[in-house]
Amino acid sequence: MTKTLRVGMIGYQFMGRAHSNAWRQAPHFFPLKAGVELHTICGRNPANVEAARAQLGWQYAVSDWRQVVDSPEIDIVDINTPNDSHAEIAIAAARAGKHVLCEKPLALSVKQCEAMVAAVKQAKVVNMVCHNYRRIPAIAQAKRMIDDGAIGQIYHYNARYAQDRLVDKNAPIVWRMNKKISGSGALGDIHSHIIDLGRYLVGEFAEVSGLMHTFIKERPISGSSGGKMGRVTVDDTSMFIGRFKNGALANLEATRFALGRKNYIRVEINGSLGSLFFDFEDMNRLKFFDNTNPLDRQGFRDILVTQRGEVHPYVGHWWPPGHIIGYEHTFVHTIVDFVNACVDGKSVQPTFQDGLMNQRVLEAVEKSAGSRAWVKV
Amino acid sequence: MTKTLRVGMIGYQFMGRAHSNAWRQAPHFFPLKAGVELHTICGRNPANVEAARAQLGWQYAVSDWRQVVDSPEIDIVDINTPNDSHAEIAIAAARAGKHVLCEKPLALSVKQCEAMVAAVKQAKVVNMVCHNYRRIPAIAQAKRMIDDGAIGQIYHYNARYAQDRLVDKNAPIVWRMNKKISGSGALGDIHSHIIDLGRYLVGEFAEVSGLMHTFIKERPISGSSGGKMGRVTVDDTSMFIGRFKNGALANLEATRFALGRKNYIRVEINGSLGSLFFDFEDMNRLKFFDNTNPLDRQGFRDILVTQRGEVHPYVGHWWPPGHIIGYEHTFVHTIVDFVNACVDGKSVQPTFQDGLMNQRVLEAVEKSAGSRAWVKV
Amino acid sequence: MTKTLRVGMIGYQFMGRAHSNAWRQAPHFFPLKAGVELHTICGRNPANVEAARAQLGWQYAVSDWRQVVDSPEIDIVDINTPNDSHAEIAIAAARAGKHVLCEKPLALSVKQCEAMVAAVKQAKVVNMVCHNYRRIPAIAQAKRMIDDGAIGQIYHYNARYAQDRLVDKNAPIVWRMNKKISGSGALGDIHSHIIDLGRYLVGEFAEVSGLMHTFIKERPISGSSGGKMGRVTVDDTSMFIGRFKNGALANLEATRFALGRKNYIRVEINGSLGSLFFDFEDMNRLKFFDNTNPLDRQGFRDILVTQRGEVHPYVGHWWPPGHIIGYEHTFVHTIVDFVNACVDGKSVQPTFQDGLMNQRVLEAVEKSAGSRAWVKV
Amino acid sequence: MTKTLRVGMIGYQFMGRAHSNAWRQAPHFFPLKAGVELHTICGRNPANVEAARAQLGWQYAVSDWRQVVDSPEIDIVDINTPNDSHAEIAIAAARAGKHVLCEKPLALSVKQCEAMVAAVKQAKVVNMVCHNYRRIPAIAQAKRMIDDGAIGQIYHYNARYAQDRLVDKNAPIVWRMNKKISGSGALGDIHSHIIDLGRYLVGEFAEVSGLMHTFIKERPISGSSGGKMGRVTVDDTSMFIGRFKNGALANLEATRFALGRKNYIRVEINGSLGSLFFDFEDMNRLKFFDNTNPLDRQGFRDILVTQRGEVHPYVGHWWPPGHIIGYEHTFVHTIVDFVNACVDGKSVQPTFQDGLMNQRVLEAVEKSAGSRAWVKV
Repeated sequence: MTKTLRVGMIGYQFMGRAHSNAWRQAPHFFPLKAGVELHTICGRNPANVEAARAQLGWQYAVSDWRQVVDSPEIDIVDINTPNDSHAEIAIAAARAGKHVLCEKPLALSVKQCEAMVAAVKQAKVVNMVCHNYRRIPAIAQAKRMIDDGAIGQIYHYNARYAQDRLVDKNAPIVWRMNKKISGSGALGDIHSHIIDLGRYLVGEFAEVSGLMHTFIKERPISGSSGGKMGRVTVDDTSMFIGRFKNGALANLEATRFALGRKNYIRVEINGSLGSLFFDFEDMNRLKFFDNTNPLDRQGFRDILVTQRGEVHPYVGHWWPPGHIIGYEHTFVHTIVDFVNACVDGKSVQPTFQDGLMNQRVLEAVEKSAGSRAWVKV
Repeated sequence: MTKTLRVGMIGYQFMGRAHSNAWRQAPHFFPLKAGVELHTICGRNPANVEAARAQLGWQYAVSDWRQVVDSPEIDIVDINTPNDSHAEIAIAAARAGKHVLCEKPLALSVKQCEAMVAAVKQAKVVNMVCHNYRRIPAIAQAKRMIDDGAIGQIYHYNARYAQDRLVDKNAPIVWRMNKKISGSGALGDIHSHIIDLGRYLVGEFAEVSGLMHTFIKERPISGSSGGKMGRVTVDDTSMFIGRFKNGALANLEATRFALGRKNYIRVEINGSLGSLFFDFEDMNRLKFFDNTNPLDRQGFRDILVTQRGEVHPYVGHWWPPGHIIGYEHTFVHTIVDFVNACVDGKSVQPTFQDGLMNQRVLEAVEKSAGSRAWVKV
Repeated sequence: MTKTLRVGMIGYQFMGRAHSNAWRQAPHFFPLKAGVELHTICGRNPANVEAARAQLGWQYAVSDWRQVVDSPEIDIVDINTPNDSHAEIAIAAARAGKHVLCEKPLALSVKQCEAMVAAVKQAKVVNMVCHNYRRIPAIAQAKRMIDDGAIGQIYHYNARYAQDRLVDKNAPIVWRMNKKISGSGALGDIHSHIIDLGRYLVGEFAEVSGLMHTFIKERPISGSSGGKMGRVTVDDTSMFIGRFKNGALANLEATRFALGRKNYIRVEINGSLGSLFFDFEDMNRLKFFDNTNPLDRQGFRDILVTQRGEVHPYVGHWWPPGHIIGYEHTFVHTIVDFVNACVDGKSVQPTFQDGLMNQRVLEAVEKSAGSRAWVKV
Repeated sequence: MTKTLRVGMIGYQFMGRAHSNAWRQAPHFFPLKAGVELHTICGRNPANVEAARAQLGWQYAVSDWRQVVDSPEIDIVDINTPNDSHAEIAIAAARAGKHVLCEKPLALSVKQCEAMVAAVKQAKVVNMVCHNYRRIPAIAQAKRMIDDGAIGQIYHYNARYAQDRLVDKNAPIVWRMNKKISGSGALGDIHSHIIDLGRYLVGEFAEVSGLMHTFIKERPISGSSGGKMGRVTVDDTSMFIGRFKNGALANLEATRFALGRKNYIRVEINGSLGSLFFDFEDMNRLKFFDNTNPLDRQGFRDILVTQRGEVHPYVGHWWPPGHIIGYEHTFVHTIVDFVNACVDGKSVQPTFQDGLMNQRVLEAVEKSAGSRAWVKV
């Protein structure tokens, strides 16, 4: 008899929609070790959360996250709230014995992250930080290939996460531009993704020299009369050069000021035997240069990562070759592995520990950008 | 109070999976004029259909399609069976007053299609043939732009639908290779898609000169002992040159013998003011050459068709710009429009009439390939 | 002591410029078996030919081609005149014992071509038709790979040569639109190139079903007062489907009505073991799909055909890897091989015989387009 | 009567070949204000320089550069020697009243560069540093567009110059790996190019934080017996983040350890109205995102920079649209502008002053990499 895991999800905006979809879809496409029940959705505004409940397919709606954490019926707590509340909720959930899935960045500070890691360790609950891009089939395939030695020793990790959503000077202030709530701007929100991919695919960072910048320092307050302006207290862009512990060199840049780049995550890894290239806007493809091919036939291979069965990670559970998948599927893959981990009672990557390690890099970049000095991670 | 439409779906293989997903997902992402209930799934093998019911999210499973058609509880019949049963089921469903959605090709012959069109007209039911590629956002955007005059008078429609799934000589015989069941091979299965896109984007075909070919004429019978071989009675590839009624020229090719092409649907349209280019394997993109740009700044524009709201068709209901969608979403869009059409009591494109017109082109190509003469559509 | 071959070139327009450049450049980059001397340039207008002489680097200028053919000092006659004079000049040159390089298409008709082939055979002179695209390094590399069996048995040859230079209705009449001088329009001028590549890379054509069309039938006469219009007597576009003698299928299209396509020569070849793809506008690249790669690492390989030495054909004589070459270099490669052939006294491909075979395909397409029937080549 | 300028060229390796070609070709394709004569080629090894003379098309060969500088017959000195001799030769040439074209980097140090600038100023000779990539038509077009305001205020300059020629551990030591002769490795040789493009397209650099690294510190000495190894005293890679004086952010990386990248110069510039993207391996293309296009039709435009006449810079002097040019043509364009500048008696960009400014950035990067601190340029 298959067990059923009941989920309580806190936060119902963008990430709440993506996670709800994943909870709904996972059982229809993947063999799960347990059933999942979309039990309770939680948000602060009762009317909005009820609307979200109906739209997103949950059974119950509540407006106090403690109701979720305290509910004896709930097995899993899925945290999609703004960054400043991650730590408190996650620690409470762990203490209540719930398995915890938490959106990235894990929290506002290394200190918060350390407390969260301590809490899940003590409680022995399964924990995961939702770096969903690890489970893009092309990225998971890249990981497999690197582990197989396909590109040899890594020399370079060069990545850029670029969007253009803040180029418009009239784009209003949102919570993500308030340092108290979000911790940082591009750094925590998007840069953290390519830092995570670096840690996943290359190794641990050793030291960084960073730069952060805010191009537009005041923006209109949404809905305010008379054109009131608010101060942007986070970075529009952050970048750093650095070194990995294994000797590879790093060059990472995240920006919201690159017109034409919508959700462009360009990752290039150069090794002693080959290179890999990925661009999220073509997320079903992985480019692979194999230096062991005959010299006259070498070239970047455009792998359409959509083969059936287990040939390529995850994607074979969806549609036939060449029938591409999208952004939302990365959350489904994350949920699939998380659910199975909950049944097994053993966390799978990326754990809260990964979230902590990521935060250490974020803090190092921020510290370096402030002190204008190299900083060890 | 919103009405709820109850759906009976017949056939649960590849298309059944894709349609089930669409029925489930549509209400979570789009404002529908009615609720939808995944009421009954139907298939000939009771054990398999019960497994599909559980996996795909239906309430009831039956093994005789007449139970679906005759059920007073069901409002919509969704037909995903092999091509030889489309006509009989669709006509029965129409006579029973059900709205009918039918997979393509609409039937085995023009004659069958004519009977189906007559049946839905007489019964005044909403009807649609599932040419889902019309609702790829990039294709719907192309249609908008052509209707707006963005490329002017059309001179060329050059399209190729290429797969590689039959290059392997040991790929076994399946029902799609049996002319009695499928009507044709690449012609009806994939060529019909680019014929439909031609009719949608350019206009009606006037005349064709076609060629059909079977590269591998015998294939192993799956599961048979002693290496028994069966005869392939359909085309591996079909191609034709021709003319549209509006004077545009046509060049279409469909093949299952193009290694490396997984589900490659390359469409190029050249007009007097610009050109459009689409490739399904990059389905979130539409290339547009605008000859009215200054001469030194002209070039194919790579439109990432993922803008919010109603800027681009359909896609704004999913995720933010740059967060791509996949194959399955085209079925959701189809279901959304079909459900709303059912509520409005008025069919939307592509109707059974479109299925019939498509079949006329298929028959013309087949006749031309046989007679080695030009054939009027 | 190295011999020196003296060249007489007839015609100094577009092709004359390209050939002159090749004669000048070849000795600086390639080891030739003989020196070359740009001896005499010939054109009908004495003032213009003198200006061309100075600009293009020739010693003497004459205005009667017979002076070139009859000159005892000249070893090689290079014919770049309009198509209607190729036969007469080439035959006279051969009879005079000159080696002959002739622009494509070889002549206006199969009959003319046959006479030319007879003449060079009888005179035992080295002869070549200038299908320069054979010596694009990427194409020469494709030929090597096909000969090595890299893509196995060929199933499909699908090619399109597209330009946009005649979309403008006000583009004036030129000699290429006069059937008497040019023989045909897109067919002989650009279609002949992809026919030649088909013959080079795949094999001999067996039969065709063709279509030719003129979108704009009247155009202004250049320089005429009062907006006089002239009749276009050649095709703007031609296309055909067909079969090669070895069983491969053919689909070729040539057009001057594809906006945004400047000199777009797209060639795709699908075989039993792999596929090749080429696009002239990215002429330094060859795409190769190798079905023998591990299934999870397959993809079109983007070969940058610029390796040093003899790794890739011809290109290693120019610059280091990644330093691309352009259109004009294909003529240099042609001249290099032609000069060495003259010294060896043995023609190399493509010979006049190739020009004749090409013309047979052109005539078959034209006949088929006229009779609306399949025609054997 | 047109004047003729006589050229003396010192150094005949890679750059000497490229320059010789440019001197030969310029008059055949461009209207020059003076004739040019390939008068004297100079190199230290008499036998080799004589061979180069014959191969590259020069009249005289000498083995002491002072013979060139001192010759009253010579108007222009073109310096292609290793970097350590640039300053001495250039200064002597200027003092002798010659116009001077010098390969990049201009010299080994800021101090040397300053002396060179002083010398050419005092002598009032026309001077140019050969940053040939400025005259890639796509780059020159980018410059025009930026000057026209097509992308507005610039936010980001993100560039990478990647090659793979040193990944092979057995690649032998050459002069470019000896700091005394070359000054630096990737930094001066290739990084200087993207620094120059940054200065040309964006503006002056203000400050940098840099990193330099040598992956392989010992390499075989070419031709030595017994596998003797030599020490690499320059960088394999260098990168920096920084700021331009106008507030734009900079991220530049140069490496010779990126397998599959042959001469990959990727440049992206993001501004307030649009973005530009360039990749040298597709050097005939410029990608342009124009944020003023209608929102549903925005996308990176793929401009094939090959239009006729003066529509696109330089390229219209070569071949028709779509007929691409290559690496060597950038030198021809440089020579054309330099020759005309010599006649006009007025230097054109990039002058020795540009070489000096470039060197200041190089030194700042090197200093920063050494001190691990931010350095003002």
